[in-house]
Amino acid sequence: MSTDHWSATEKKIARRAFDAAHERETAAVMEELRRKVAGMKSAKDLWEIENFLYNRRDEVDEKYDYRYSQLIYVFSILHYQGFLAEADLAGLSPDKIEAVKHMGDCFRR
Amino acid sequence: MSTDHWSATEKKIARRAFDAAHERETAAVMEELRRKVAGMKSAKDLWEIENFLYNRRDEVDEKYDYRYSQLIYVFSILHYQGFLAEADLAGLSPDKIEAVKHMGDCFRR
Repeated sequence: MSTDHWSATEKKIARRAFDAAHERETAAVMEELRRKVAGMKSAKDLWEIENFLYNRRDEVDEKYDYRYSQLIYVFSILHYQGFLAEADLAGLSPDKIEAVKHMGDCFRR
Repeated sequence: MSTDHWSATEKKIARRAFDAAHERETAAVMEELRRKVAGMKSAKDLWEIENFLYNRRDEVDEKYDYRYSQLIYVFSILHYQGFLAEADLAGLSPDKIEAVKHMGDCFRR
């Protein structure tokens, strides 16, 4: 399967796309944290924020797996969740882009 | 040892002191969280905040142990850390107050 092979150019594009998605997602977590802290009133709110951050860190750590064997799957999740645009993938082989979009479609079902 | 026996009146005072300390400590955590979030700029800052909150929750959960067998020890820590004033203990037997202060002195050494 040609989605298994990543050329040097594709590796650069993939790394850039991966980092951009990671930056967007952490920015979204930061924004949500700011919003939650602005509305925080009680100890209950405080520990809910702790729980929120703990879970988000766990998700992010688990999701951002930069192994070429996993990248199509990782990119499809990031694309589905809106952290990765199709434009970020420009320059990857058409079958890779297709695979990312196709797998993303499966999440919708 | 008379520090082992808690009268009904002492139990009320102890509960009030315990709850007041807990409220002060969570208020302090909330204040520190607000300060940290106001200065947050990067993903590194974000995950440091997650780590800070996780550790503080762990400490608070472990420390606030409302068993009469543990209360002198718990109160001595809270007094030493500034979350419990001597005035909060007014009405407890003098030996209990002395035990709280004495144990607190040991933390200073």
